[in-house]
Amino acid sequence: MSGVIVTHQPRAETKDVDALAGCGVATVHEAMGRTGLLPTRLRPVQQGVRVAGTAVTVLSWPGDNLMIHAAVEQCGEGDLLVVTTTSPSTDGMFGELFATALRRRGVRGLVIDAGVRDTQELRELGFPTWAAAVSAQGTVKATGGSVNVPVAIGGQIVRPGDVILADDDGVVVVPREKAREAAEASQARETKEAASRAAFQDGQLGLDRYGLREKLAQLGVSYVSYEEHARDGAGA
Amino acid sequence: MSGVIVTHQPRAETKDVDALAGCGVATVHEAMGRTGLLPTRLRPVQQGVRVAGTAVTVLSWPGDNLMIHAAVEQCGEGDLLVVTTTSPSTDGMFGELFATALRRRGVRGLVIDAGVRDTQELRELGFPTWAAAVSAQGTVKATGGSVNVPVAIGGQIVRPGDVILADDDGVVVVPREKAREAAEASQARETKEAASRAAFQDGQLGLDRYGLREKLAQLGVSYVSYEEHARDGAGA
Amino acid sequence: MSGVIVTHQPRAETKDVDALAGCGVATVHEAMGRTGLLPTRLRPVQQGVRVAGTAVTVLSWPGDNLMIHAAVEQCGEGDLLVVTTTSPSTDGMFGELFATALRRRGVRGLVIDAGVRDTQELRELGFPTWAAAVSAQGTVKATGGSVNVPVAIGGQIVRPGDVILADDDGVVVVPREKAREAAEASQARETKEAASRAAFQDGQLGLDRYGLREKLAQLGVSYVSYEEHARDGAGA
Amino acid sequence: MSGVIVTHQPRAETKDVDALAGCGVATVHEAMGRTGLLPTRLRPVQQGVRVAGTAVTVLSWPGDNLMIHAAVEQCGEGDLLVVTTTSPSTDGMFGELFATALRRRGVRGLVIDAGVRDTQELRELGFPTWAAAVSAQGTVKATGGSVNVPVAIGGQIVRPGDVILADDDGVVVVPREKAREAAEASQARETKEAASRAAFQDGQLGLDRYGLREKLAQLGVSYVSYEEHARDGAGA
Amino acid sequence: MSGVIVTHQPRAETKDVDALAGCGVATVHEAMGRTGLLPTRLRPVQQGVRVAGTAVTVLSWPGDNLMIHAAVEQCGEGDLLVVTTTSPSTDGMFGELFATALRRRGVRGLVIDAGVRDTQELRELGFPTWAAAVSAQGTVKATGGSVNVPVAIGGQIVRPGDVILADDDGVVVVPREKAREAAEASQARETKEAASRAAFQDGQLGLDRYGLREKLAQLGVSYVSYEEHARDGAGA
Amino acid sequence: MSGVIVTHQPRAETKDVDALAGCGVATVHEAMGRTGLLPTRLRPVQQGVRVAGTAVTVLSWPGDNLMIHAAVEQCGEGDLLVVTTTSPSTDGMFGELFATALRRRGVRGLVIDAGVRDTQELRELGFPTWAAAVSAQGTVKATGGSVNVPVAIGGQIVRPGDVILADDDGVVVVPREKAREAAEASQARETKEAASRAAFQDGQLGLDRYGLREKLAQLGVSYVSYEEHARDGAGA
Repeated sequence: MSGVIVTHQPRAETKDVDALAGCGVATVHEAMGRTGLLPTRLRPVQQGVRVAGTAVTVLSWPGDNLMIHAAVEQCGEGDLLVVTTTSPSTDGMFGELFATALRRRGVRGLVIDAGVRDTQELRELGFPTWAAAVSAQGTVKATGGSVNVPVAIGGQIVRPGDVILADDDGVVVVPREKAREAAEASQARETKEAASRAAFQDGQLGLDRYGLREKLAQLGVSYVSYEEHARDGAGA
Repeated sequence: MSGVIVTHQPRAETKDVDALAGCGVATVHEAMGRTGLLPTRLRPVQQGVRVAGTAVTVLSWPGDNLMIHAAVEQCGEGDLLVVTTTSPSTDGMFGELFATALRRRGVRGLVIDAGVRDTQELRELGFPTWAAAVSAQGTVKATGGSVNVPVAIGGQIVRPGDVILADDDGVVVVPREKAREAAEASQARETKEAASRAAFQDGQLGLDRYGLREKLAQLGVSYVSYEEHARDGAGA
Repeated sequence: MSGVIVTHQPRAETKDVDALAGCGVATVHEAMGRTGLLPTRLRPVQQGVRVAGTAVTVLSWPGDNLMIHAAVEQCGEGDLLVVTTTSPSTDGMFGELFATALRRRGVRGLVIDAGVRDTQELRELGFPTWAAAVSAQGTVKATGGSVNVPVAIGGQIVRPGDVILADDDGVVVVPREKAREAAEASQARETKEAASRAAFQDGQLGLDRYGLREKLAQLGVSYVSYEEHARDGAGA
Repeated sequence: MSGVIVTHQPRAETKDVDALAGCGVATVHEAMGRTGLLPTRLRPVQQGVRVAGTAVTVLSWPGDNLMIHAAVEQCGEGDLLVVTTTSPSTDGMFGELFATALRRRGVRGLVIDAGVRDTQELRELGFPTWAAAVSAQGTVKATGGSVNVPVAIGGQIVRPGDVILADDDGVVVVPREKAREAAEASQARETKEAASRAAFQDGQLGLDRYGLREKLAQLGVSYVSYEEHARDGAGA
Repeated sequence: MSGVIVTHQPRAETKDVDALAGCGVATVHEAMGRTGLLPTRLRPVQQGVRVAGTAVTVLSWPGDNLMIHAAVEQCGEGDLLVVTTTSPSTDGMFGELFATALRRRGVRGLVIDAGVRDTQELRELGFPTWAAAVSAQGTVKATGGSVNVPVAIGGQIVRPGDVILADDDGVVVVPREKAREAAEASQARETKEAASRAAFQDGQLGLDRYGLREKLAQLGVSYVSYEEHARDGAGA
Repeated sequence: MSGVIVTHQPRAETKDVDALAGCGVATVHEAMGRTGLLPTRLRPVQQGVRVAGTAVTVLSWPGDNLMIHAAVEQCGEGDLLVVTTTSPSTDGMFGELFATALRRRGVRGLVIDAGVRDTQELRELGFPTWAAAVSAQGTVKATGGSVNVPVAIGGQIVRPGDVILADDDGVVVVPREKAREAAEASQARETKEAASRAAFQDGQLGLDRYGLREKLAQLGVSYVSYEEHARDGAGA
């Protein structure tokens, strides 16, 4: 893997990033037509935190954190570090010292498809972190990789400068060119959901609100009482 | 999958359900002769909550929440929704809007062998949830399924109206006909355990309390000092 | 499996154990040359707790907790129980009653490569626990095993009397003969890390602090601006 | 788990079982409305074998094969043994000696949601086997369980006497009362599939054969040339 | 997910594809600087087959094969179908009828990050297939997706027209612009490996051939006899 | 990890190794009191091969095969290479060139708790291989490790010179001091099993042969006819 560190990457505009941070991951994912969700193995090490930032991407060798050091220099205010490895690894490639350095540069958090360590310290520092594993396993600095190239995590492509939004539900990526559009669609969706919430609190059913009774009928789903169903030998 | 929505399901009696809610999952599982435990992949999204309710069951297509909408209408006071899919899925089929609708109907919680989203909102709402995954992945409403048919989750069969008890240790199902018996056996077990707890606090050993010294001897388990064991070349 | 219960096991010295408890798992693992880490599937049931103790080891049949009863008697002040099974199991072999008995004997915690139950009670008791699973599944007392023999968990060997250190990052084992050396090396490492932390807070880069710029160059990792990279057809 | 051995179980009729054996697992699963499929972790230890039989069910303690011995006596001509455990286990509960005993009784094969061993010998014997794991790990005979009670494997319920059909694609269960209907529906489906096969060999498209072009349009799926798509910035 | 079917995709040149088919997956992956390897969960359903083709990509909803029907029409001579889903799924989305239609069009094989069925028939047809699962689970045709858009599988991006090479070791993707260069580098590597093979057959050591003795010394790896090592208390 | 290469390791005697090779993995594991089995993730890349050899152990950094090169030099006639990594890895650390070098030295096979590649070539060469994964992912030669130190794989400890026996059922380790005893016990067990096989072919039941009817009664397992069981509401 030859390896390249790409500098001067483009970034989504801050006001769009911040607008997206006003919505949840599930909402933004829906508003973009159910796209962009990173795999569920990426879990937060803290609870109740939502953050959005512009991606600085890292592609590392497993068990080696050399390229994260290189990436720190490319990070600036409003960025969020996104790390993946060339093959699966749970090693603890990132800890409190990296978080200290990144906070100094205004970085908003970390998403890593590998392990992290110093989790208690990360929580105390208030450095938002999503990881595929927690592991104290240390790493070496021996093999090259790349910074700010497009990377793939699960089924998603993350490019430098794309918006990363993360909360307790997981992590979603918004292509940098669609940040504005996604933010607007997400806010529209929130308005719609507020109406649904009110209706459900009033006792309306989704079956009626979304017109699903006809759909059930079309699909041949029928209603039968338990007693009748049991008489047909299908109950238990 | 033709699909059927079964109405007027039987339900275990409320006072038995509530009696079971007074005991922990481990206790009830033991009191029923170590049966009824749902798979360990079902984890709570909150901590320190115990709840019991009567099952309304849903069998859905993966990535499709149409039948949960149909199930909401069949739910009433004291029920607990149990959702499974026809093949494994981590998609976030359930979120805050469903929880809002179910709370309005007096539903006590959710057990889902798939994903949930809006987890922070579910915790804030206080809607107790156990799930196989947390995922913001949205779903469609395109394919039929069934409500209130017997479903299998891991090695257990859950029928409509059976009692579902869940806490931090996991989820157990009690057949509706055995709710009374299970509640009584669980309370008896708690009494017995209180006596053991007191004895252990006093320093008694399980080896003596449960008569296990003879069993060890019968099984050929022997005692040897570390020094002697090491001399035989077996230490390390 | 014939089975043996080894008594009078050696133990690392208490002052070394306590010195190790003053450092984190990641630090001690690094200070020992990146060795001794137990597998990442061992997760704490509580948050924010660090503990160190001398290992009492148990090798049990899956689904059977007979040998844990035998092990309780071999446990004393400052010990930490380490349980593994002859084949993989998630069953809840350990719960609140065992914790009650062990606390009475001054035992500092549990590491188990299987399941635990009564997790809420364990948190309330303040009995520190690391486990591979949470499961209410009960166990029998039917088959022999061993106490205080060397056991292997993941890639590590744990011998009776070795030091076990555990925190939110996981679990590390320190051979009893190396406890002193490991404690000293860990404290030295903490001093070094404090200096790095201060430097990073001041804005120094790891690239400079650790002399990594030359390494990147030697490895053929090059720098290129995003614009230039995109012009070469490699951007996205 | 008190445990019971149920004798004189009902069985699907042999001619229906044999008719089902004439179709593949995928066909029968489809013909029953996409129901009945056992989990994909059940894999054949041989290749190119298809078999159908009537289920004799076993519910065992993990790491314990006592109840398989009890089940052998309940097996007869045309049966197929189905084994599951009270909690997940990969132990090798079944091997060549059991296969020898079962073949003597006319048993057609084994489906086990745990481990098997002596796999080379099972292939040489020609005893068809589907298992969740291959493991030489031996078991004890210490704990009770049940024979010929309904068991749940993955999302499916298997009752004694139900038809089990297995081939390289996996395992499907057909409720004994539906064996005739399922066999007929499967044969009808095979006829339909033969027509589709011929049409596809002639170059017809599924889009046309199944009328899917309109569906794509309704769903808003559009066609665009690569060049045009790239011009819109969406290519890569 | 709005969904688009991209037509007239570019394709790597046939002679480069065929040159790559002359080398193994491991060789090509190495020759490209250890890049391009798809995840190890993609396993062949046959043994001893190597194939290369130009990718037609499909992004489908889990449990839904509508878009595979749409993709068939976009496939031509020398193509290889690459299917992924918007969230993880093991459902058997592809079987013998699809293979029949694709062979008619000159398609060389299938790589699918989900399940396949009719595996015995696929082997008999000689349609090379790599899949993440084998499952008879049927699918619906209800939800839109895309054809010939870039997709991500594990850590790799696959674009329409890229070269896919697959054998018993797994699957590698070669960007279409680099097909020529990769083929040449692979052939050069094969020549080099032939020389190494001959040297190893003659008894040369990798330590000498690759100059690794100095590296070991630099890294501080030392030699010690077993007896001496044991005397230091480090043996076992 | 400082790293050491231990030379002149002891080895079990050849005639004991060869005697063990005459028995299957399941038999030897049973004959040693159900001990020594390596984890089930180690699967053969070929079928129908059984081999035994004396272990040369390697502890490597994930994604790095430097230490395998160092180990080749320590391997001699009758050895079997055993490789593990400091943290989990599926990378293809071993392939055809290593196998060529090892065959030249009389090495009997490979057991690796990581990935292998060139699997088709390994089968053609006839170099018996058991691995945790198949992966073409290449590795670097950058980080030190150890050769011929005790390693832990799953729950087992493997020391240099111990006997490794592997077949289609998996891999078992026999401590070198117990090779003779294990071989004799295994042969005795084979004799006993031959008698059981003959008895089962004659129609005897395990229930009678092993005296299990009393055990079932003691455990409270009762017999009931299906009709009676159904009448009690327990059938389905």
